[in-house]
Amino acid sequence: MGRWEPDARGRLDAAALDLYLEHGFDHVTVAQIAERAGLTERTFFRYYADKREVLFAGAAALQGFLVDAVLAAPAAAEPIAVVGAALETAAAEWFEPVRDHSRRRSLVIAANTALQERELIKLATLSRALAEALRQRGVPDAAATLAAEAGVVVFRFAFERWADGPGQPPLADLIRASMDELAALTASVR
Amino acid sequence: MGRWEPDARGRLDAAALDLYLEHGFDHVTVAQIAERAGLTERTFFRYYADKREVLFAGAAALQGFLVDAVLAAPAAAEPIAVVGAALETAAAEWFEPVRDHSRRRSLVIAANTALQERELIKLATLSRALAEALRQRGVPDAAATLAAEAGVVVFRFAFERWADGPGQPPLADLIRASMDELAALTASVR
Repeated sequence: MGRWEPDARGRLDAAALDLYLEHGFDHVTVAQIAERAGLTERTFFRYYADKREVLFAGAAALQGFLVDAVLAAPAAAEPIAVVGAALETAAAEWFEPVRDHSRRRSLVIAANTALQERELIKLATLSRALAEALRQRGVPDAAATLAAEAGVVVFRFAFERWADGPGQPPLADLIRASMDELAALTASVR
Repeated sequence: MGRWEPDARGRLDAAALDLYLEHGFDHVTVAQIAERAGLTERTFFRYYADKREVLFAGAAALQGFLVDAVLAAPAAAEPIAVVGAALETAAAEWFEPVRDHSRRRSLVIAANTALQERELIKLATLSRALAEALRQRGVPDAAATLAAEAGVVVFRFAFERWADGPGQPPLADLIRASMDELAALTASVR
């Protein structure tokens, strides 16, 4: 067993993002990340299976958080409101405290096609999980799928703006505003 | 130059889908596809760069069709109505005549993770192209992005149902119904 390193994971995350932004994701090695963090490669592999996982390790936990929030929502709440409230809670508790980290992560992903593809797959998986949680609440299949998909569209849209710079409002506010805008847009077909 | 083969492309498409459904996409070779179609490998490569392209070659043409439809829509039309009308026209002209082919293609893709990922990327590319076409019409950035994303969500949702079996209504009707359902769902947040 290696000795305990204070905030090893945080140091690895910060070092990895620094290096990905400096050199491009494809040109960074685990050895470089560990060295920049002042840790060993062995410590890196105690936290992550590979250098890509640094960017996507939080996805499963976030998905679990959102699914729990959907399942715990008041029984009478409308499907889209349930999804919107879950996303706003995650925004405030999960993302707002790490805005700069999120912004830097977004820049890394935007610069690499394979990472963009991984991000798309992650969001599609999240959408399916949210739809399944809504179905568990008794929401009919079509409404569950469309509400989950709409929620993910709104989240991604709001997130890109939020991560774009420090001048943006809180992510939860952007999610709410984007949901309102989607509602206004689709209202024109009714 | 090889001699002209009547409907070589159609025969290759049908043979490829047959084989992908029988053996799984990963286990089929171009040689097998050509043999099943009664053609040479050389003829295959006159139409497709590889066996995956059989499934995705239509994407660029469809995207061009949809972008043209968005650009040609009446100036006063609402963004979401422009996107919806373009999708309904493509549904009627493009997909309805090849429903069984579409259904079989969907089954092939549903059975293979890498193909599902490619399909996601194709749809994300389509969404960006539709948003860009809306911006060219003068639609503000946020509305353009959200209307395009909502359109793709509705299209994918309707398409999955339509491709699910011969008992389904025409794709254009399913698109319209799905758009209405999305509007009804999002209306609850207003």
